[in-house]
Amino acid sequence: MNANQRIALDVMGGDSAPACNLDGALLAAQHGLAPERLLLVGNEDVIRSGLEERGGNPGFDVLHAPEAIGMDEKPGVALRAKPQSSIAIATGAVKMGAAGAHVSMGNTGAVVGAATVGLKTLPGVRRPGIAVTLELTGEPVTILDMGANVVPKPEHLLQYGLMGAVLTRDVLRRGSDKAAEKPRVGLLNIGEEPSKGTDLLREAHGLLTESPLNFIGNIEGGDLFKGGVDVVVTDGFTGNVVLKLLEDYSGFMLNLVMRELKAHGAQWGPEALSNVRKRIDYSEYGGALLLGVNGIVVIGHGRSDATAVSNAINLAQRTLDADVNGHIVRGLEG
Amino acid sequence: MNANQRIALDVMGGDSAPACNLDGALLAAQHGLAPERLLLVGNEDVIRSGLEERGGNPGFDVLHAPEAIGMDEKPGVALRAKPQSSIAIATGAVKMGAAGAHVSMGNTGAVVGAATVGLKTLPGVRRPGIAVTLELTGEPVTILDMGANVVPKPEHLLQYGLMGAVLTRDVLRRGSDKAAEKPRVGLLNIGEEPSKGTDLLREAHGLLTESPLNFIGNIEGGDLFKGGVDVVVTDGFTGNVVLKLLEDYSGFMLNLVMRELKAHGAQWGPEALSNVRKRIDYSEYGGALLLGVNGIVVIGHGRSDATAVSNAINLAQRTLDADVNGHIVRGLEG
Repeated sequence: MNANQRIALDVMGGDSAPACNLDGALLAAQHGLAPERLLLVGNEDVIRSGLEERGGNPGFDVLHAPEAIGMDEKPGVALRAKPQSSIAIATGAVKMGAAGAHVSMGNTGAVVGAATVGLKTLPGVRRPGIAVTLELTGEPVTILDMGANVVPKPEHLLQYGLMGAVLTRDVLRRGSDKAAEKPRVGLLNIGEEPSKGTDLLREAHGLLTESPLNFIGNIEGGDLFKGGVDVVVTDGFTGNVVLKLLEDYSGFMLNLVMRELKAHGAQWGPEALSNVRKRIDYSEYGGALLLGVNGIVVIGHGRSDATAVSNAINLAQRTLDADVNGHIVRGLEG
Repeated sequence: MNANQRIALDVMGGDSAPACNLDGALLAAQHGLAPERLLLVGNEDVIRSGLEERGGNPGFDVLHAPEAIGMDEKPGVALRAKPQSSIAIATGAVKMGAAGAHVSMGNTGAVVGAATVGLKTLPGVRRPGIAVTLELTGEPVTILDMGANVVPKPEHLLQYGLMGAVLTRDVLRRGSDKAAEKPRVGLLNIGEEPSKGTDLLREAHGLLTESPLNFIGNIEGGDLFKGGVDVVVTDGFTGNVVLKLLEDYSGFMLNLVMRELKAHGAQWGPEALSNVRKRIDYSEYGGALLLGVNGIVVIGHGRSDATAVSNAINLAQRTLDADVNGHIVRGLEG
């Protein structure tokens, strides 16, 4: 195995770090990941004693990082103040080819900042974008950008369409059917007509229409739940608002439902709703991918548990194995 | 009663027009609205025979409009092609002082277009905005703009904050408690810090901070479900995306829940969930208000039933009775 096929896991990131990450790494190994593909990054003592407590190290490499960035620290300030943080060290491992992917449940802004500055963009990519995959209807729908690029240019949106399509084809729906070869790309807007929305969206609509992508035109928020689209392109502001709204609204709605069910004397409500919870939980899909940088970067949710961490590792592995970044570069050349 | 206290109801607008509107008008009268306050606008034969079928006219005035604009017609084109449409005639009635409010379940773009052109803005108002009130947490939260002003300027957002605060204080939470005198205004953004988001939002944050409003700073999408904010200010693009997302996501989630409950053999799921449905249905609050034009304009949902129409009429009545527009003008002077 080449070192650049390894996955650097930030053991110190996340609300339940380091436990969630150590448990998640062990879970990934149980699910078949070769332990030597994982590089655990963080305080070495913490990692080694944590693994001891869990029955020993099955063969993970460990990379010491003496500092850790907290979930609520200001990303720019923290990255400057803590050059030896697990996020910085893991990013550096990818930069130097000691790993191909960085997986972190930590401070999103710090992970994105470190990757953008440290890894640089892939050849041809103008701006990285954060892609989140939801599986609301039973099929994956990838939305990007979710917040890396708050005021994008039309060309950025075009590139997000291409990067999302590569991810869908090569990883998310790989070989699932013929249609998956040409993922359907939609532009999030407030009406179907090409004239709708802002100047940015009108220009992006034109670029996407002229591109070789399977562009299905403007879509509206509700289309996320109707099937028929694989990649939803949006600016980082709207994407971030949408993501947070969906997350919090899901919890809010389910609480309302639970209360009503309880009022009707249901005992089994919680169990019945766990399947619903899974469907609306994007950590089921392993977290967000920062696409467009020279390396694979998976950003999990701060509140990830071991399963979510294992899913994030799995997403990184599949994205590496499919050479998504190679395909993005070649797609942009075409 | 002055003619300008009357409410012009577009009988021809909505997916179930004219039935939903005639039934809604009669329901409003049953709930205590003086029939002479309602001016039914539409095809006079249809209205008179429809009322006959429903037991007679309790005293509504009728204003004939020989044309009707379909729900899917292009607003600009339709308004030019059909100068005698019920939307145009009802707007004209407000313009001429034959009514003070226009209530329509019809083509939103046409209602907004007719009002913007026909009624003009209130003195001091730069751009009208569409306000939608949700009652997710049990207290009304008003979001504006929901789509009238897709690319606003910072001053527009400031004025939306003021208009939303007047509506909250005078109508939605009138006299409910001391706090309702100073409604809490938040700016929808992707982080709490004033530096977050776009230039538009940073400038609007500054203007709102300096204003006499009770500005609580930036809020995020999820804060809609947590209480603590009365008025959410946003641009019309984001607002429209958010509204459609909430609407469609609600239906999607409840369908998921229903399916799970059925799979667990529940017989009473549908009943248990009807309370949830009500909470997330903004037509419970009577629809959207176009704030900032020289007249009261309530735009209901196309799929409104009689209850929703009655709620919309009630919202128009309360907004008229509270002299919201007078208070907006005086607020902008201050």
